[in-house]
Amino acid sequence: MDNFMQAAIEQARLGLAQGGIPIGSVIVHKGRIIGRGHNRRVQKGSTILHGEMDAFENAGRQPARTYHESVLYTTLSPCAMCSGAILLYGIPRIVIGENQTFIGEEALLRSRGVQVDVLADEECIEMMRTFIKAHPELWNEDIGVEDSHHPS
Amino acid sequence: MDNFMQAAIEQARLGLAQGGIPIGSVIVHKGRIIGRGHNRRVQKGSTILHGEMDAFENAGRQPARTYHESVLYTTLSPCAMCSGAILLYGIPRIVIGENQTFIGEEALLRSRGVQVDVLADEECIEMMRTFIKAHPELWNEDIGVEDSHHPS
Repeated sequence: MDNFMQAAIEQARLGLAQGGIPIGSVIVHKGRIIGRGHNRRVQKGSTILHGEMDAFENAGRQPARTYHESVLYTTLSPCAMCSGAILLYGIPRIVIGENQTFIGEEALLRSRGVQVDVLADEECIEMMRTFIKAHPELWNEDIGVEDSHHPS
Repeated sequence: MDNFMQAAIEQARLGLAQGGIPIGSVIVHKGRIIGRGHNRRVQKGSTILHGEMDAFENAGRQPARTYHESVLYTTLSPCAMCSGAILLYGIPRIVIGENQTFIGEEALLRSRGVQVDVLADEECIEMMRTFIKAHPELWNEDIGVEDSHHPS
């Protein structure tokens, strides 16, 4: 197992232990982690702190060149917002833990020249599968989907 | 002048008065502002709180349906990250103050069915033009562009 994906998975586990959605991410510059993050919808009532966004925020203000030399690791295929942040900052490569429980904007990223590697990691899949089954309404909220059981 | 764009401009002015990048945004649901925001890169050292992202964050956790019935106003054409957030939450229409000092992902948004209206507002143009001239390095950082004057 890639050490950096392992660090992203640790972030996901940390989020889960806090009662949150188990998605984690790290940003790596020249072999060093410069930002770690996990989804904080539940913990902070945040609508923008997905795992990848939290990693960007925790990396702090970096020169553009640093982003252009970095790799982003995320346990789950990045949604439109997180993919947009990857494009904004010009991250050239991302490594995804899994894209079986949710598939984000991988095609868009590839069309813009981002290298996208998918690991199909069993722990990543299992964490999300279990979480989605237990909290479908929370997961739907996180990806902007209307809950089919919603009364209105 | 549209009252909601006026509210977004007030947010941009507020950011400028704080020493920040003058971009503001509001999210409007059924004629009522549910979130106001402005760029907070300088104020909070944030890499993700663009004006639109700040408006999403300040609107708080909303049902998916609320986003699907909302209009987002922003003083400047939205970058890839903010456009991604608009797509994630399924905002059906956005109103842009200007796209002359920067053009974001308007084509992508339109290709996904978002209605994009551009006002070419003189105050929005002037605020950004003046700011970019005075602080080119800060503006480049905000949009992930390498500063051509950077020594390395």
